[in-house]
Amino acid sequence: MAEQVRAIRTRQTILLAAATIFEEHGYQAATISQILKAAGVTKGALYFHFESKEDLAQGVIAEQDQRFVVPPRASKVQEIVDVVMLHAHRLQTDPMVRAGVRLTMDQLAEGLDRSGPFLRWSEVGLELLQQAQAQGELMPHISPSETADVIVGSFAGIQSMSQAVSDYRDLVGRVSALMRHVLPSAVVPSVLASLDLSEDRGAAVYAEALAASGDQEVLDAAG
Amino acid sequence: MAEQVRAIRTRQTILLAAATIFEEHGYQAATISQILKAAGVTKGALYFHFESKEDLAQGVIAEQDQRFVVPPRASKVQEIVDVVMLHAHRLQTDPMVRAGVRLTMDQLAEGLDRSGPFLRWSEVGLELLQQAQAQGELMPHISPSETADVIVGSFAGIQSMSQAVSDYRDLVGRVSALMRHVLPSAVVPSVLASLDLSEDRGAAVYAEALAASGDQEVLDAAG
Repeated sequence: MAEQVRAIRTRQTILLAAATIFEEHGYQAATISQILKAAGVTKGALYFHFESKEDLAQGVIAEQDQRFVVPPRASKVQEIVDVVMLHAHRLQTDPMVRAGVRLTMDQLAEGLDRSGPFLRWSEVGLELLQQAQAQGELMPHISPSETADVIVGSFAGIQSMSQAVSDYRDLVGRVSALMRHVLPSAVVPSVLASLDLSEDRGAAVYAEALAASGDQEVLDAAG
Repeated sequence: MAEQVRAIRTRQTILLAAATIFEEHGYQAATISQILKAAGVTKGALYFHFESKEDLAQGVIAEQDQRFVVPPRASKVQEIVDVVMLHAHRLQTDPMVRAGVRLTMDQLAEGLDRSGPFLRWSEVGLELLQQAQAQGELMPHISPSETADVIVGSFAGIQSMSQAVSDYRDLVGRVSALMRHVLPSAVVPSVLASLDLSEDRGAAVYAEALAASGDQEVLDAAG
């Protein structure tokens, strides 16, 4: 058991070091020796957990999907809003999430498959939109997969613009504006009227998910 | 005159070389010597046109705004759609536009101010949306600057997602879907009904702008 905990910690140490090095040098220029040095672990330990530089990058990228689950909502459209707002909040506050998103958006990263996070987020959105459709929350002409792709793609650009112009300070305002522009085209008015799209929604959902998880590891990791 | 033409050509050769090198190595890792070698020009020629690596990157980035102007439309919302669709078409077909957009989206490019294109595109959108508002094309609650930012930010992410999942093959379809999701929240129904949001709109506007420019340099450059 103690050994398993140690292995998880070592893996996390390596991922944090990789995130830092990718942030500093870009995926292309980053090397495994730099990551080894920053992590302070042996080559054997690193290769026990990760096969290659791409594997390390995929590990960092995967961290953005982990750990926090939005509690189920009666309105599945509200649940989508909460997933989006929570992700925005984590981008503002968690360096690992930030590093994963930057790698995903690194259009210069040759040989790194960046489609994973787009496709995974689209699947999350599709599933929730299909549930929303089944319970009559969407306009009749809406295709859940198209709407999911529009939300995921738009969010990716909104966060990039926010990083470029304000280093994420205006992120939640921009994401709230995106929701107010996209949802009225897809959602029936009675549902729209009941949605909470406010800028502080992400922080509130984060606190709720944290409390609900009851997981000491998560609470520790979240500081 | 001949000398001026030569200077413009040299500048263009250097920009093309810079675009290629930035694409290959990323902004961070690219060096001026690599660009010199790729351009086949002297150090003096390069520094006559560009002061630094950042200056070269800004030159490549600025190319995406250049050359093609959408003819004025009676509906200013249609004009915005045409600007967006034309840009999508150029992204699919012009390597220099592609390189400029990738640099703009390179969140790992330390020391490169990437806010310029976001802010310039927002200004273009704002101006057209203000004209649309003045002639009654927008819903009463719409703030043109917020809507402009939503469109610019969303487009940036949609293009990045399209590049990651299909190397831009599905770009015009995704951009058309974005327009169909954002505009109904902002535009009055009678204008909405008259818009052309079809996927081939960008190619048509490009042909129109090309013919209207009547500029042999542009025709040559467009090959």
